[in-house]
Formats: sequence, structure tokens, C-alpha cells
Amino acid sequence: MRVAVYGGKGALGSTLVNHFKSKDWWVCSIDLRENPEADVNVVVKGATLEEQAAHVNKEVATLVTEKLDALYCVAGGWAGGDASHENFIKNTDLMMKQSIWTSVISANVAAKHLKEGGLLTLTGAEPCLEGTHFMIGYGLSKAAVHQLTASLAQKGGGLPEGAVVQCILPKTLDTPMNRKFMANADFTTRTPMSYISEMFTKWTEDPSSRHPNGALVKILTENSETKETVV
Amino acid sequence: MRVAVYGGKGALGSTLVNHFKSKDWWVCSIDLRENPEADVNVVVKGATLEEQAAHVNKEVATLVTEKLDALYCVAGGWAGGDASHENFIKNTDLMMKQSIWTSVISANVAAKHLKEGGLLTLTGAEPCLEGTHFMIGYGLSKAAVHQLTASLAQKGGGLPEGAVVQCILPKTLDTPMNRKFMANADFTTRTPMSYISEMFTKWTEDPSSRHPNGALVKILTENSETKETVV
Repeated sequence: MRVAVYGGKGALGSTLVNHFKSKDWWVCSIDLRENPEADVNVVVKGATLEEQAAHVNKEVATLVTEKLDALYCVAGGWAGGDASHENFIKNTDLMMKQSIWTSVISANVAAKHLKEGGLLTLTGAEPCLEGTHFMIGYGLSKAAVHQLTASLAQKGGGLPEGAVVQCILPKTLDTPMNRKFMANADFTTRTPMSYISEMFTKWTEDPSSRHPNGALVKILTENSETKETVV
Repeated sequence: MRVAVYGGKGALGSTLVNHFKSKDWWVCSIDLRENPEADVNVVVKGATLEEQAAHVNKEVATLVTEKLDALYCVAGGWAGGDASHENFIKNTDLMMKQSIWTSVISANVAAKHLKEGGLLTLTGAEPCLEGTHFMIGYGLSKAAVHQLTASLAQKGGGLPEGAVVQCILPKTLDTPMNRKFMANADFTTRTPMSYISEMFTKWTEDPSSRHPNGALVKILTENSETKETVV
């Protein structure tokens, strides 16, 4: 398989790159920093969405010479604040860049470089299906990603024939960062990153295992058991 | 009444400014260009969201010395394209600036300058409650505004005590621009801009006439009759 990971140097992205390499897949990492485990790296540059997209598109056109089986966008981040918070604008700007920009560029790359019947995954967040007053910038950015997923799944959305988009809505991933900052939390409700790797592998190798095109797939772990539910 | 219109030099914004001035209200216009009809003007400057917000906040802090009864954000625009469109990135960037940036800055200004029990209106779009494959950037931007509305309506969203946010979802306004480019359309299904002016006046003067806090209010005109429906 030939795949690309947007956010390939992040916590989840690195796990994915390692996992796919262990299966001998060809992996392109797209991130602000190089991931030496990947076969090729696109290092994101540019201060504006247009600059970043132009740079990524140019690099991908050079490095990705055969169509991709899948592109997984797992870039993201978190920052909070309500509308009166002193960092409201700054944090909202960051959230838009980390969630919307990466998803939009992924959609554009997928439109050009995904195989027919290929897979694009985006990353949303279940709380953002409703209002999220304590993290307004995060909420509106993830809501944009959810709606983008619906648009891409429609006929005429621009993805190659038969390609499928799935938006994952994980609750809390069991990352080193989350272990550090939520040390007293209940680990039986954390989703192991290996679950996401295996799920993406299955969706990539076996298209019949995918959820309906455009699905928002909630990933919930309880008592150390993880379930996928389409919302 | 003391009110501000974000987008006060646009088609709908100019109509609002004129209407409120005809009622002898004090009006602040916030736009890329001055509106000479307004009492005071904040001319938006800056290339980034942070720069624009800092500039608008600074100007508003100087010019708006008493709390506002209402802030109406009617800034916006339209550009289409699916994920494979050559202008997909450019148009998406523009839509984010015109819809998300203006709404986020409006929310921030409202949090600081609205009276208790005041009114904030944002502008969404009904089609964007679902996927919008032929106008992906527009769709995801308006979806972000819808979710922002839900966050702001929650306790702790940052608006002053008792303030209410309403997001209007007009279908097609009867603007000179729309008359020009959709000349053969059925004008009995266009919403007159005077309807919006009157509706905003009513919501501002009589809080009991408002829809529930956080409502997405569909504005639909059929046979020259306009109705408001909360979706």
C-alpha cells in the first residue's frame, strides 16, 4: 500500500507511520517536522493557507509519483477559551490552522493523488457536534471539519471515483502527552493509538470494512474496550 | 439604541445602517470601507485574524464608549468550488476570512461591549447544515458559524449576562447584486432587505420577540411572504 499521513510527526501520526512501515507500506509524512521513519517527507512551510497548500501540493507532486491508497489527516491540537478570554482570538486562529487548514489541504491533495476507491480520513471531535463554550475556537474548527466531510462524500465533492472519506471522532487517545497532563484519569476509558492504526489498516486494505461514505465515526473506549459508532 | 453593524458597508449592512439612522439610533459601522451614514466607523485593517481583531478591538474601545444594545454581523460573501477546483484553497481561505473571522471578531467585541441582555446576530446559511459539495469552503465556514452560535448561547460562552445570540439563515436576499446576476430568478422568493432591518429592530427593541438563545433562524420567502423558522 502507498499512503500519506498528514501530521505524521505528531503523537498519533508517528504511531501510524511506524505501524505502516512495520507492514512494509510506502509512507509519505506531511508535517511541520520530518519523520525519519517515513519513506518521504513533505515539510509544511508558509504562513498562510495558500502558501502552505501551494508548498505541499508542489512537494507532493514531486514525491508522490503513484496514486495513493489512503491519506490520513491526524494533524490537530487543542486550545480553550470562551469569547471573552484574553487569548480567544489567538487560540481560535491556532485551532483553525491546526484543524481546518490541514483538513482542507488534505482534501485538496486527496482529490489529486488518491486512487479511485481510495480512502481519506479526517479528524473531528464529538463534543463539537454541540456548542463548546469553554473551547470555542476548537469547537468551530472541528464543526467545519465535520461539514467538510459531508461535502467531500457527496457526488461532485472532488474526490476520485469511489473514494471514501471517514471522519474519526476519538474521545481521549492514550498518548504520552495525555498521560502526562491527565495523570489521574481513568486509563480504561482511553483509546489506545494501536486501535486507530489497526482500524485505518483494515479500512485501507478492505474497503467493505469502511463505514458509509461521509460517516462521522465516534471512537469510544469503555472498560478498555473500544467501539466504533457512526453518529 | 446604540448598535454596531459588522459589514456595515455591504449590501445588507448599508440597508441596516440607513434603517437604524432613520430611527435615530447611534450606529457604529465596522467594515473594510467607511460608511458615511454611520455615526462612527471602524475600518478593518490587518492581514491576519489576530491583526484584524487587535485593530478592531482597539478602535471599538476608543469609539464605543457606552455599552451596545446590539451587534449585527452581516459580513460575508460567496465563492464556490469542490476539492479538486483550481481555486479551492483560495476560495476556502476567502470564505473563512469573510465568514469565520468576522463572526469570531464580532463575538469578541460583543463579549466586551454588549449590554447585559443585549443582542448579537451572526449570519449562517441553511444549505450548510448538510454537505455542500459545489461550495465546500463556503459550507465549512458557515458550519463553523452555526457551531459558534451554539457555543456563545451556552452559559460560560463569554457574552454578557442575559445577552442573546441569533444566527440568521437567509435563503436569497433581494440585493442589487443578486438582481444583476440572477436576473431571471423568481423575485417572489427573494427576502427583501427591509424584512431583515425590521426583524433586527424588533429583536433589539423587544427582547421577548427574540427566538431562543442560540437559535439558527431560517428566513424563507414564498409568494412574497417571509417567515422565520428555528431549525
